[in-house]
Amino acid sequence: MERLTVLQDKPQDHCGIFGAGLCPGQDAAPLLYEGLFALQHRGQESAGIAAAQGGRIGVYKDVGLVTQAIPRAALDALTGNMAIGHVRYSTTGRPTRDNAQPLVVRMQGGGMLAVAHNGNLSNAQQVKARMQQEGIPFETQSDTEVIALGIAREIARGLPPEEAVRTAMQAWEGSYSLVILTQDTLLAVRDPLGIRPLCMGRKEGRVVFASESCALTATGCTFERDIRPGEIVQALPDGSIRTLEAATAKRTALCSFEPIYFARPDSIIDGQSVYHSRFLAGAELAHAYPVEADLVAGVPDSGLIAALGYAKASGIPYGDVLNKNRYVGRTFIQPNPQDRTRGVRLKLSPIPQNVAGKRIVLIDDSIVRGTTITQLVALLRRAGALQVHIRIASPPFLHPCLYGIDVPTGGQLVAAHVAPDTLAASIGADSLGFLPLGRLKAIAPDCRLDFCDACFSGRYPYPIRCDNQAESCHCHPQP
Amino acid sequence: MERLTVLQDKPQDHCGIFGAGLCPGQDAAPLLYEGLFALQHRGQESAGIAAAQGGRIGVYKDVGLVTQAIPRAALDALTGNMAIGHVRYSTTGRPTRDNAQPLVVRMQGGGMLAVAHNGNLSNAQQVKARMQQEGIPFETQSDTEVIALGIAREIARGLPPEEAVRTAMQAWEGSYSLVILTQDTLLAVRDPLGIRPLCMGRKEGRVVFASESCALTATGCTFERDIRPGEIVQALPDGSIRTLEAATAKRTALCSFEPIYFARPDSIIDGQSVYHSRFLAGAELAHAYPVEADLVAGVPDSGLIAALGYAKASGIPYGDVLNKNRYVGRTFIQPNPQDRTRGVRLKLSPIPQNVAGKRIVLIDDSIVRGTTITQLVALLRRAGALQVHIRIASPPFLHPCLYGIDVPTGGQLVAAHVAPDTLAASIGADSLGFLPLGRLKAIAPDCRLDFCDACFSGRYPYPIRCDNQAESCHCHPQP
Amino acid sequence: MERLTVLQDKPQDHCGIFGAGLCPGQDAAPLLYEGLFALQHRGQESAGIAAAQGGRIGVYKDVGLVTQAIPRAALDALTGNMAIGHVRYSTTGRPTRDNAQPLVVRMQGGGMLAVAHNGNLSNAQQVKARMQQEGIPFETQSDTEVIALGIAREIARGLPPEEAVRTAMQAWEGSYSLVILTQDTLLAVRDPLGIRPLCMGRKEGRVVFASESCALTATGCTFERDIRPGEIVQALPDGSIRTLEAATAKRTALCSFEPIYFARPDSIIDGQSVYHSRFLAGAELAHAYPVEADLVAGVPDSGLIAALGYAKASGIPYGDVLNKNRYVGRTFIQPNPQDRTRGVRLKLSPIPQNVAGKRIVLIDDSIVRGTTITQLVALLRRAGALQVHIRIASPPFLHPCLYGIDVPTGGQLVAAHVAPDTLAASIGADSLGFLPLGRLKAIAPDCRLDFCDACFSGRYPYPIRCDNQAESCHCHPQP
Amino acid sequence: MERLTVLQDKPQDHCGIFGAGLCPGQDAAPLLYEGLFALQHRGQESAGIAAAQGGRIGVYKDVGLVTQAIPRAALDALTGNMAIGHVRYSTTGRPTRDNAQPLVVRMQGGGMLAVAHNGNLSNAQQVKARMQQEGIPFETQSDTEVIALGIAREIARGLPPEEAVRTAMQAWEGSYSLVILTQDTLLAVRDPLGIRPLCMGRKEGRVVFASESCALTATGCTFERDIRPGEIVQALPDGSIRTLEAATAKRTALCSFEPIYFARPDSIIDGQSVYHSRFLAGAELAHAYPVEADLVAGVPDSGLIAALGYAKASGIPYGDVLNKNRYVGRTFIQPNPQDRTRGVRLKLSPIPQNVAGKRIVLIDDSIVRGTTITQLVALLRRAGALQVHIRIASPPFLHPCLYGIDVPTGGQLVAAHVAPDTLAASIGADSLGFLPLGRLKAIAPDCRLDFCDACFSGRYPYPIRCDNQAESCHCHPQP
Repeated sequence: MERLTVLQDKPQDHCGIFGAGLCPGQDAAPLLYEGLFALQHRGQESAGIAAAQGGRIGVYKDVGLVTQAIPRAALDALTGNMAIGHVRYSTTGRPTRDNAQPLVVRMQGGGMLAVAHNGNLSNAQQVKARMQQEGIPFETQSDTEVIALGIAREIARGLPPEEAVRTAMQAWEGSYSLVILTQDTLLAVRDPLGIRPLCMGRKEGRVVFASESCALTATGCTFERDIRPGEIVQALPDGSIRTLEAATAKRTALCSFEPIYFARPDSIIDGQSVYHSRFLAGAELAHAYPVEADLVAGVPDSGLIAALGYAKASGIPYGDVLNKNRYVGRTFIQPNPQDRTRGVRLKLSPIPQNVAGKRIVLIDDSIVRGTTITQLVALLRRAGALQVHIRIASPPFLHPCLYGIDVPTGGQLVAAHVAPDTLAASIGADSLGFLPLGRLKAIAPDCRLDFCDACFSGRYPYPIRCDNQAESCHCHPQP
Repeated sequence: MERLTVLQDKPQDHCGIFGAGLCPGQDAAPLLYEGLFALQHRGQESAGIAAAQGGRIGVYKDVGLVTQAIPRAALDALTGNMAIGHVRYSTTGRPTRDNAQPLVVRMQGGGMLAVAHNGNLSNAQQVKARMQQEGIPFETQSDTEVIALGIAREIARGLPPEEAVRTAMQAWEGSYSLVILTQDTLLAVRDPLGIRPLCMGRKEGRVVFASESCALTATGCTFERDIRPGEIVQALPDGSIRTLEAATAKRTALCSFEPIYFARPDSIIDGQSVYHSRFLAGAELAHAYPVEADLVAGVPDSGLIAALGYAKASGIPYGDVLNKNRYVGRTFIQPNPQDRTRGVRLKLSPIPQNVAGKRIVLIDDSIVRGTTITQLVALLRRAGALQVHIRIASPPFLHPCLYGIDVPTGGQLVAAHVAPDTLAASIGADSLGFLPLGRLKAIAPDCRLDFCDACFSGRYPYPIRCDNQAESCHCHPQP
Repeated sequence: MERLTVLQDKPQDHCGIFGAGLCPGQDAAPLLYEGLFALQHRGQESAGIAAAQGGRIGVYKDVGLVTQAIPRAALDALTGNMAIGHVRYSTTGRPTRDNAQPLVVRMQGGGMLAVAHNGNLSNAQQVKARMQQEGIPFETQSDTEVIALGIAREIARGLPPEEAVRTAMQAWEGSYSLVILTQDTLLAVRDPLGIRPLCMGRKEGRVVFASESCALTATGCTFERDIRPGEIVQALPDGSIRTLEAATAKRTALCSFEPIYFARPDSIIDGQSVYHSRFLAGAELAHAYPVEADLVAGVPDSGLIAALGYAKASGIPYGDVLNKNRYVGRTFIQPNPQDRTRGVRLKLSPIPQNVAGKRIVLIDDSIVRGTTITQLVALLRRAGALQVHIRIASPPFLHPCLYGIDVPTGGQLVAAHVAPDTLAASIGADSLGFLPLGRLKAIAPDCRLDFCDACFSGRYPYPIRCDNQAESCHCHPQP
Repeated sequence: MERLTVLQDKPQDHCGIFGAGLCPGQDAAPLLYEGLFALQHRGQESAGIAAAQGGRIGVYKDVGLVTQAIPRAALDALTGNMAIGHVRYSTTGRPTRDNAQPLVVRMQGGGMLAVAHNGNLSNAQQVKARMQQEGIPFETQSDTEVIALGIAREIARGLPPEEAVRTAMQAWEGSYSLVILTQDTLLAVRDPLGIRPLCMGRKEGRVVFASESCALTATGCTFERDIRPGEIVQALPDGSIRTLEAATAKRTALCSFEPIYFARPDSIIDGQSVYHSRFLAGAELAHAYPVEADLVAGVPDSGLIAALGYAKASGIPYGDVLNKNRYVGRTFIQPNPQDRTRGVRLKLSPIPQNVAGKRIVLIDDSIVRGTTITQLVALLRRAGALQVHIRIASPPFLHPCLYGIDVPTGGQLVAAHVAPDTLAASIGADSLGFLPLGRLKAIAPDCRLDFCDACFSGRYPYPIRCDNQAESCHCHPQP
């Protein structure tokens, strides 16, 4: 997940969230710190923790990785047995502390409300406009503020928090997995389509929420179950939970990029092992695009598991052809920016033993701009590869995501602009194959939810209000 | 190579070195920056670059990773077409800028000399004592200062630099790969036994030196050859080289831990692919310690390649059982230090798909204290593993290294203190096997040098002067 | 107060403290931040704030100035209307976060107690030894822990906090101004002799405590009165206070160095204007050591006010002879440490107009090692001064302070080791005069307390238990 | 010079420059570090050093104070006996490393040129446009690039550096004090009107240049003389100088704000003691605006010397009424930004002894927006002052500066928009007096140059090309 800026050629997720309601007298902030650390792959721009203590909510948040943003002293400052936390990938402009989450708002009457949000309200502007007409003041451009102030409005009308969330949800479209903290309760919410993951576990009998099950395992919690689409779960002081089916939808729509790329391989999401999904994607590619070759390899780290699947299904031996420099991060200086291939060379180097004189199948999880894969093919050829066959463990991106993934905008999408049969040539590969859209379901046999595949198919789970009349618009609403 | 402090349970290398003599008018510092970045795995405590320009040598060095230690402004400050650089793992005390290399010394007459050193002079104290009797003043405890002042003494006597090095070398025992910079020449030196690696390449026709070939590839240089044991190579202004066979020894003794653990898999050292060595070590383990199992896996990242070799040789399928959190670094806060297993949980998590109900062979590259592997066995069992068989891709450590590797001292060595047949039980494994010492040579069929295996066998390549009369001494000198 | 390390030639105070109990619902941390900033001159090594909220106490503390140690995010994390804070000068070893205050301890039964301390318990080791015999565990070497655990012990025995403090105080000797926070009350305490200052004010009707009145003025609070020696003041939830005369002593003993050097000139301590004290000290010097001269000047900044007093009393014009570089701080690099006068030159420069051809009276507040004043005399002579007469606005240091001031140890004291009549010559001055010990009282005509002058007179306010039998001991106990 | 952002109510200078050509073999960078430190008051946004060694120029520059921008390691990296340096106040946007100086440009043929500039070319846009028509490419918006590329163009035409500067200067209008470094020579240049100061001294016989004489004194150099308006001084390798009278003007025009505010009191500029100028300004105010009062005081630090002059001339006693918090810097958090007076309170506090019941004359060096002085008057009244009479040691600002001073733009100038007789009332003072424009010359009796007083008088030393046709334009060109 570490990356050189010039190599950033992958879709970006926005957030990971974590919540815990421990026994009274036991501070939750240290557990939050560990939980966010285990979700770091979901967002590296900022991190924050909010804790409720004695009628008030304290929050500490800053830019950077968890270990940079949250100093040890902050864990001592954040008292309280109930807490929520957030890691964020900032999509617009430079990361700032002001955009970091959890977002804390003061309610009428002095109460406080903290919200941590993973996802994107696709109708945030419309909802916000209506709220502004009612006189509700906004301070940021964030859709999370639309969520928080929407809930606060219902609480101000006298509803208890869980009912306030249920009422406010009725106005929202898009994706939202939330953990919510008031001065005396902790809630978790998942949108009616279940677009972003959210699960629940236990720590010494008390309720813990996390974006992915890996964060429960890594913090010594037990996994209990996923939050259901449209469900509100309230952690009660005695460790029990109250659950509300707040909204239903005709379908479910788990983001298919969670198993393909975002989630950690050791997570199980809605019943489906992420590791197994990637392995199956490789196997599907082997069936759809067989080839004679000497070696199957993956682009580290995100293509490695699919490569194992391709090797197993094809019978071609698995091996590594690229070594990844583990120190690649965000601060690398580019002394010679004019050298276009330098970035790839410094991050990924060929392993001569497995490249020279070999016919190679190389698996990656996705292509966005195509710059990286083009450089990798050239790099392998210079190192003596006889043939390089590229297999991509997802269908081509053809449509923008409206639900919280930062796919580079339409104009940059390789697959949308180059005819499939010429794309292989344009990246210099001997052949190229994408996971067939029709086989997407096959990579998640154990998943209890359906996939959202809008970025591949253009079939958005919500009706699209496209203001763009231009021919170049990629919206093809097919609700 | 990234690690949580509490997990540090591996031998530590000390340094990586890089040197370049480019065309006049072309600054070498940017290339050095990239080269050191590619050698970052050999030392993460400090980094530095020295460049010669117009009769003087400028140096910039600081603690931290290359990207932290060397700011962009430093590359503008370091002019000069000849430069050397160093990354360091600090073995004693806290890292400080003063211990960072290259070490620059002023010579009589005003000339300057910079040295970057990978290795350890085993007779540094004796050599230093003799030099002090001659009135040569020392400012540090570092054996690199012994090397630099030894060369400076010979230059002061009127020898040209390459002859000065040849003369000074006669007094040295132990390991030393060096790059040396004076105001007008660049030298590379490897000790007569070739204990630490060192190779040579070209950038636009000009000479470049590096600890490992991976640093040449990653910086767009071409690999030319390894420096031979006992060889001094001088880069001449026109791009040609002059070579001196400065010393010979009856044997050669490349550190066997270079292919086993230290070096990057994409490096080729003295003819031997590091990747292939690790693969072969796995295969040897499969032959020596076969077992019925469902899955072969490696401890990320250092056991993964050996696991592929074991899988191939045994016919048992390869798969991942542990996911590594890529954000594990040095700054993690330990909110609950009493929780002994927390460190492993946060760094490595079981992949449920491949663990529950499975008989697992787990390969690691080495065991030092045994704490990590014990925790991993327990972690896999809690995740439902039926059996866990541990295979170690190196023989047991039984003797301290005197040539630059920081193996935890004798008293901490698991393998030295626990009888082999009870060690498996003590770490909780169903079985345990080490690479047989007799098969060490078999993992490097293409290597032109012999191995030093003193840490396994007690056969040190130099006579040992052991001042320790106690029974617990692990020295068994067999010159 | 900023200083170049090499110039540090002044006694060092240890701490400043601040406390506030605002209205419920109003967070105190922002006020604490400002209050500590106004007390920054009392300690620059670390800063911290502890706030009580809903039965728990959160604390944030770190090394550095207030603006470095406490980030903006910390103020959001520290909820609660009652808070205490601390700035510290670290006397032993390097500053660390662990030694920063407030110190927070957990009490039996789960309650928490936070203490911020200015002063030094002179019998801390004896009290600690007795408590350890009772089985009370200590984690640090700090006398503040002796205070905190002493109070906690009495609370554990069932006493309310104010009574717990009163009981614990009976065992303590030495200096202690304290602000104390439990989960539901805020206390201020001053030792029976009143060695360190402590005062009380109001913010919107609520109680605020501070080491000096300047911190009340600077934060928009109104000054109410000083805490009396031996008094415990408890801030009650309704804004009223409860006061206990917890201990009495036969005398009072305000540290005379507070008006001479430590306190800010705009503070009024126990009735006495600090500015006026310094002015009077200058006037006393003019009476005791008159001289013919052209100009009276002060060493910036601590000698300037006394110089005004000397000028007024003597009729000699006042003027500046030294300009202070306002950017002198702790991080200055010393490129040429061998240059002994460089440090003074970079910090203080002569103003030619007022130096060349002039007979100068130069006032400083104190002399410790004498190195700085010697360099200043030389610097003025090089700039053309005809005569330099030094006047020191305090008596000579002859005895160590046991109550919280870090005077360099006996062996370094210039005045103790050099006969008064040769000291002028040794520092190169034309004449030298110290404030006569007998006139010390005259500089504080409005002060309600007596002075402690032990460092000048050897008359310690508490009996001295001197373990040092050597002749060189400077202890002359005269209780 | 330290300041809270909200209090920034003073004109801003842009830069300080320093240059040194030491003996061969002696690195100049450590001296540069000290010299820039002594000029820190002229610019706090960034700092940089460029050094020439063996045909190349290395440069290290970064944002922050000298002690922050230039780490110790940079001094080791910057070899070479000739160096120039710069401290900068950034006028536009946020400070960045890219805008820091010295500016280094590569010339045709590979030579390098470094320039450090204090001042502002008023016709930079016109000169740049002409150069761009010739095909010279610009990378920044900086007028310093116009200077550097202008010189480089003449060198490319074959002129030696000193002639290249002379030729390039013919096109420039405005203010420029420069130090210039090529690979083999060091030059200092002052514009024909001498608007910014520049002087010359010696270090061990070698030539040193500095913006102010204080930087020579502070670094142990001897002062030799000021650079004359229009003079180019070249430091020759043997320590001698060559001088060119490159341009002449009918008048000279030293910026009058140098003695009034920018320069350090211990500097002597063109023969005039800065300390004495400020003292005389106070005396002039006493003559022009006498008043009955109990005390004369200055606003720390810039009004203190003028207050001494007023006191002397009026016979009213001098005393301090405001204490300045020495820790006020740029990073202070503003917890309650709505509190308008907080900033002043935290920076400046009344000294009760000298305020309560007193009639006070308070001197400041200048007024720009008037916000600070208004708050100070109110603060003194709240502290019990009976009367507050404000005296300003400079005439009112009525016109923008075109030569390198950042006076807040016309619309913000208090004095330009409020009739003199109502301004006293608007700031709450009992009376108000500015230094009469006609007495400006009287404060610099020893100065060899005339003053530029364009910001007070509108009489600009160069013809003005005003593109602003609006009525609100403050330009009144009177060449």
